[in-house]
Amino acid sequence: MKILGIDPGIGICGFGLIETSGRSNARALDFGVVTTTVDAPLPSRLKELYDSLYEVFEQTKPEKVAVEKLFFSKNITTGIAVAEARGIVLLVAEQRGVPVYEYTPNEIKKSLTGYGSATKTQMEEMVKVHLGLEKKPRPDDAADALAVAITCSFLHQLGQGNDYRFSNSRR
Amino acid sequence: MKILGIDPGIGICGFGLIETSGRSNARALDFGVVTTTVDAPLPSRLKELYDSLYEVFEQTKPEKVAVEKLFFSKNITTGIAVAEARGIVLLVAEQRGVPVYEYTPNEIKKSLTGYGSATKTQMEEMVKVHLGLEKKPRPDDAADALAVAITCSFLHQLGQGNDYRFSNSRR
Repeated sequence: MKILGIDPGIGICGFGLIETSGRSNARALDFGVVTTTVDAPLPSRLKELYDSLYEVFEQTKPEKVAVEKLFFSKNITTGIAVAEARGIVLLVAEQRGVPVYEYTPNEIKKSLTGYGSATKTQMEEMVKVHLGLEKKPRPDDAADALAVAITCSFLHQLGQGNDYRFSNSRR
Repeated sequence: MKILGIDPGIGICGFGLIETSGRSNARALDFGVVTTTVDAPLPSRLKELYDSLYEVFEQTKPEKVAVEKLFFSKNITTGIAVAEARGIVLLVAEQRGVPVYEYTPNEIKKSLTGYGSATKTQMEEMVKVHLGLEKKPRPDDAADALAVAITCSFLHQLGQGNDYRFSNSRR
């Protein structure tokens, strides 16, 4: 099962592809970031993101996509741009026919470390351990994308997959 | 000059096409809403929105697109969905090669009524008057879309167009 985790962002969007098979640990097949032109107008950046993500899907051929749920506790202005970028991520997944699963930051931390208040450093360390990597994946955005992909694989192994899938987007 | 105003939303997205020529009043060529399936998963709704908007652009062939700037003072959860939908709106405009202009709610109210704290009813009345319509446009989402299109036409007539265009989306 190939799972593509995505960490949406307008300037930098992280992605991480993992493969899971039975009970053995997942392994990282590919990870990295796509970026957009800083000085370009927003519509142009969203199209850059769309085109780049389309290419990522084309090259990685995921069977599932995992994305973090948004919460705007910190910075609402940044949050708007992230949500706009996230709309593009979900659109591309749907256009490619890949089902999308979403997880709260708390669920992701809990899946990887066992508790919901893990630090960023602890999370990166656990991404490394879970995937058997020699060093922490870089940049942060790629590590975050791998973390949500790992969460998706864990919760599916536990048979909790359907509970976490978009079951109702009425809002 | 054909200006397409859009009021982004995940469930209902309003649009309004106006035509301006010189000093005479703008007139409404078309307005309405596109809707998405309430019970469908979010990625599917975003694709519905994308496909419908693409058709609106195809049929209306606008030269400019005008969209409201987002502020999340009221409901952040709704705001996330609106921003995701807005990302799709901007993407379609860019893919169709139509320049996008954005205005704050305050700018829109001020343009139409002369003051920034106008009520919804006053706004709808002024949309009707400015476009020479016999009755208020319905539904609200279409009226809101016409209002932002009118704002775009006013500010361009005043030579303020470039000041309001996306000059920098760095965030």
